[in-house]
Amino acid sequence: MDQELMGKVMEEVMKRLSVAEEPKKKESPAPASCCEALSAAGVTEFVGTAMGDTIGLVIANLESRILEKFGWDPKYRSIGIISDRVGAGPQIMAADEAVKATNTEVVLLELPRDTKGGAGHGCLILLGAEDVSDARRAVEVALKDLERTFGDVYANDAGHLEFQYTARASYACNKAFGAPLGKAFGLIVGAPAGIGVVMTDAALKAAEVEMLFYSTPTNGNTYTNEVVMGVTGDSGAVRQSLIAAREVGLKLLGAFGEPPKSLTKPYI
Amino acid sequence: MDQELMGKVMEEVMKRLSVAEEPKKKESPAPASCCEALSAAGVTEFVGTAMGDTIGLVIANLESRILEKFGWDPKYRSIGIISDRVGAGPQIMAADEAVKATNTEVVLLELPRDTKGGAGHGCLILLGAEDVSDARRAVEVALKDLERTFGDVYANDAGHLEFQYTARASYACNKAFGAPLGKAFGLIVGAPAGIGVVMTDAALKAAEVEMLFYSTPTNGNTYTNEVVMGVTGDSGAVRQSLIAAREVGLKLLGAFGEPPKSLTKPYI
Amino acid sequence: MDQELMGKVMEEVMKRLSVAEEPKKKESPAPASCCEALSAAGVTEFVGTAMGDTIGLVIANLESRILEKFGWDPKYRSIGIISDRVGAGPQIMAADEAVKATNTEVVLLELPRDTKGGAGHGCLILLGAEDVSDARRAVEVALKDLERTFGDVYANDAGHLEFQYTARASYACNKAFGAPLGKAFGLIVGAPAGIGVVMTDAALKAAEVEMLFYSTPTNGNTYTNEVVMGVTGDSGAVRQSLIAAREVGLKLLGAFGEPPKSLTKPYI
Repeated sequence: MDQELMGKVMEEVMKRLSVAEEPKKKESPAPASCCEALSAAGVTEFVGTAMGDTIGLVIANLESRILEKFGWDPKYRSIGIISDRVGAGPQIMAADEAVKATNTEVVLLELPRDTKGGAGHGCLILLGAEDVSDARRAVEVALKDLERTFGDVYANDAGHLEFQYTARASYACNKAFGAPLGKAFGLIVGAPAGIGVVMTDAALKAAEVEMLFYSTPTNGNTYTNEVVMGVTGDSGAVRQSLIAAREVGLKLLGAFGEPPKSLTKPYI
Repeated sequence: MDQELMGKVMEEVMKRLSVAEEPKKKESPAPASCCEALSAAGVTEFVGTAMGDTIGLVIANLESRILEKFGWDPKYRSIGIISDRVGAGPQIMAADEAVKATNTEVVLLELPRDTKGGAGHGCLILLGAEDVSDARRAVEVALKDLERTFGDVYANDAGHLEFQYTARASYACNKAFGAPLGKAFGLIVGAPAGIGVVMTDAALKAAEVEMLFYSTPTNGNTYTNEVVMGVTGDSGAVRQSLIAAREVGLKLLGAFGEPPKSLTKPYI
Repeated sequence: MDQELMGKVMEEVMKRLSVAEEPKKKESPAPASCCEALSAAGVTEFVGTAMGDTIGLVIANLESRILEKFGWDPKYRSIGIISDRVGAGPQIMAADEAVKATNTEVVLLELPRDTKGGAGHGCLILLGAEDVSDARRAVEVALKDLERTFGDVYANDAGHLEFQYTARASYACNKAFGAPLGKAFGLIVGAPAGIGVVMTDAALKAAEVEMLFYSTPTNGNTYTNEVVMGVTGDSGAVRQSLIAAREVGLKLLGAFGEPPKSLTKPYI
């Protein structure tokens, strides 16, 4: 009887708590099933959703006035859209794979100040294609790859760390970060920004890599609380520099409280 | 007895839950009663508060050094202030009505990156007047009108959509959006930005309207995660384009989870 | 028995509620003990943490490529880092004391748009030194001083107010605010921005002070929802103007709901 009562109370409580706990999920939303969401959306433009509050969309034939506004090659009338609230690196790296795998081109890449109250960026990526099936395929590839590219993103309440690695940078990394095509590329992000200063210092000392860019809150970033650095060089050296940055970053961000956790599964 | 116990437990639980749930209210605060708030503030500058974390204020005789700083016509020594954390469109449209109804002019309009962790803007609007009673009246009109202008604002945890319509744009819409005076004007906002791309595409395809401006996170917006478009033309066409955008926008934002809800009552 | 049951239920409920309530703490984190955190971090670069989600760090010998990137005097190879999510004024004023007390110089000062979903800035301050012990000492002084400089920061869910005062401005205030060295300096911050307009108006009317700068969301601030003003002059006049601004600011921000509270203990 008491057990039954307790069960009832807790059921009610937990139902309400699940509502109250929602804001906690903000920085690491669970990946939604594309198929479920598709039926929910019920419009041809919808491709799917993924972690990072990412939505994938496609427009078969973009209105000419918008196309002119963006000012890109008019042969790309079909566009794939990758748009998210939380994260820019994971989505750009995923778009890089998508561009490699399909006949598409990154025609626009903008970084809002977002992460839903966090310290970093959101992202808007438009991929141009001559054929709508290419655009759709590219968005599907990118959404699927986010599970991997969120692997070395670590977060707690105080901030986040991010590490991205590719053995062969393609057009998205080139456009976003100036990464040389076909070469190894590594990305290091630390927030709050001071942690990024220490991480990038450690990365450069750990291995013979070339610094491609170094951005701070108001010099290169869109007012995020981050230091971001891109490096290139020998693939082993790039990985080594990322691993050194990650080691010190995790300790420092952990000094704020809970140990930062990978949002999925580390791959570097 | 068990009922009584359960009641006690739930009372305690709900009391605590009401605290835990507070952050949920952020995006759609309930409109506060101006009169209650006035007595709370107890200063002559206070006019009232309204939804969107909006505060209305008035200064009878603005300090000349601030007036010089802003650089506007010195005859406007009285200013009405509309300042908020959540939203810019609703406050600008409300100010548009206020300017129509009173002898005031929009002398400053700035859009911080805000919405309290959301994807959009807050707003700061200063209305200049020669007489303090005009300034106060303008702020009162604007605060009251927010109930209406928040009608076609829709939000869920993933983002927000906004639609604004006026049959005759006045000076606030002209200053903020370049809307031709006296003509129909429509505003479309989609966040995250990718949803805005699809919505604006749909709007332009749905009716013969003229695109007044088109802004993206880092081109025209202040780093918000939004695409924003203003349209003008025949009033029927403007409404039709907004309705088309709203239809697709609600489906796409709904694909992220809960169906987006109007913050008050739709009017378009 | 019923008591026992109720106890069990509430224990479970409260355990879960403590998780759900976490986001509430965002704007006023408790000061962490430097010693506890140090052992948690376990890296030589770590100095400590403090309120405002502030972390203090030190690099003995900054990588030359980063040093070149920032473009400061190469004799400062040792740097102290003060980096935070919540607040800029308190950290800058604390750095001002640190620079007075040690042989260091402010070599970089940037203000991200942050406060973890709040209306204001975070901060990144780098202090250059020829000797690492100076850099470390400066960071320690600054972290310790935050308890004081957060004293006249007031916040509630709707916004925040900030007042900073120094009888003798030093190099950090000079670099950040253009404060004349050795003279009294006062800082007034109001968010949402409209409250700042009224506060600064009151401050200038209350005493004979000189306006050093006046910044609004998109003119001088990094898209924060704030009006910020710096004043100088006779020390009594500067204090008087801050007190006048504080009086009206507390009433106006209180009109949004809960009375704004000092984050530590007022000192002005």
